[in-house]
Amino acid sequence: MSGSKICLYELALENGRSTSPYVWRIRYALAHKGLPFESASLGFTDIPKAFNGQFKTVPVIEHGDERVCDSWLIAEYLDRVFPNLPPLFASPTEHAMVQLFDTWFSVEVMRKMFGIYLLDIHNAARPQDRAYFRQSREARLKGVTLEAFTADRVARLPALRDALAPLRMQLARTPFLGGSAPNYADYIALGVFHWVASVSTLPLLARNDDALLAWLERGFDLYNGLGRDPRMKSLAE
Amino acid sequence: MSGSKICLYELALENGRSTSPYVWRIRYALAHKGLPFESASLGFTDIPKAFNGQFKTVPVIEHGDERVCDSWLIAEYLDRVFPNLPPLFASPTEHAMVQLFDTWFSVEVMRKMFGIYLLDIHNAARPQDRAYFRQSREARLKGVTLEAFTADRVARLPALRDALAPLRMQLARTPFLGGSAPNYADYIALGVFHWVASVSTLPLLARNDDALLAWLERGFDLYNGLGRDPRMKSLAE
Repeated sequence: MSGSKICLYELALENGRSTSPYVWRIRYALAHKGLPFESASLGFTDIPKAFNGQFKTVPVIEHGDERVCDSWLIAEYLDRVFPNLPPLFASPTEHAMVQLFDTWFSVEVMRKMFGIYLLDIHNAARPQDRAYFRQSREARLKGVTLEAFTADRVARLPALRDALAPLRMQLARTPFLGGSAPNYADYIALGVFHWVASVSTLPLLARNDDALLAWLERGFDLYNGLGRDPRMKSLAE
Repeated sequence: MSGSKICLYELALENGRSTSPYVWRIRYALAHKGLPFESASLGFTDIPKAFNGQFKTVPVIEHGDERVCDSWLIAEYLDRVFPNLPPLFASPTEHAMVQLFDTWFSVEVMRKMFGIYLLDIHNAARPQDRAYFRQSREARLKGVTLEAFTADRVARLPALRDALAPLRMQLARTPFLGGSAPNYADYIALGVFHWVASVSTLPLLARNDDALLAWLERGFDLYNGLGRDPRMKSLAE
């Protein structure tokens, strides 16, 4: 079982780049554990049709007869099935602390990013996915168009940069969120920056955001430059 | 050395209650390690005169010939000098993750609390400390009075309650921030709630804030009810 191949189902844009922040966590998680994997790219409209409708989101991994959906469940699965490989969570305490970080980051940072990059995601999606993306997201926004939702995004960028202050302050103290080495909190945050860098037409960070930019360079270099890709948009002005 | 008595210098209000959120972390940290301690209470104006002017803030611990100021340095000192007692930080990763939590909590939550409870702190301080407290805090506020700074606090309470959302969401999943057992992140957050409960004339939480209120009960019960005190103001409406 633990010797079976792993296939990771990802979300692809028009240019083929993997964009989901939740998929990126698992890309890093697999690299952290030293597990090779095959990749399968799906567009937004492919996901509901794949897996006989069993799952509505990616990442999904196939591993032998097992299929696991949801990045947290996948990370826990990998630690459970490969206990002799480097752990993603060295203890239940680390698991709880990373989950708390994830919750904060989703509520305070990712929500603000949606308000700035939602139209960019639409425009970077595969052409055949755009109508579905618009319809489903505008329904969640109770009819507000993607254009209206992001119209004043330049004015809202400073609040997003401010929301990153705790990350910036901590990364001035330690090279990674996990301390001297990256842990799953780094993979969560790196995944979010990969997502933005996949689609952004408005630079997220100021040019002098040194602590964050240096951490991003370190993060993109991890695992033989797993995060490096010429299709990425610049994250700094 | 490790057998010497520990004295913890605390910040006291008019009613004698220890109020500093940073002191409360250390009260819990000492209890976590099972270390008995003597307490010495100082008012705001006593601190600069104590220790021959060596320190400007509490907590300070005296332990044999050592004096340590600053809650982070004290916590690290306790783990270093008492390595065979239960660790506050089981790994450098846990230390880094708790520091990140502390940074987030200070920036997003504690700052908002100052805007709501600063005048309450003044009014609960020892009478002989109030002029100093007012002068020093109003200087930091560039001349804005404590009264003006907190005048619209009722209108700002919802934003503070919203800022607690990540805590609330995580505590719906696990009994403590540290998972099944409390860790230093719990002590940091409990300390902040103790601070508010020492002075509050405006209930911080809604009556139905179940996950947070249940965690507070569990937290106040820790270590034979270390946090229990009839002088505490109610934290919920």
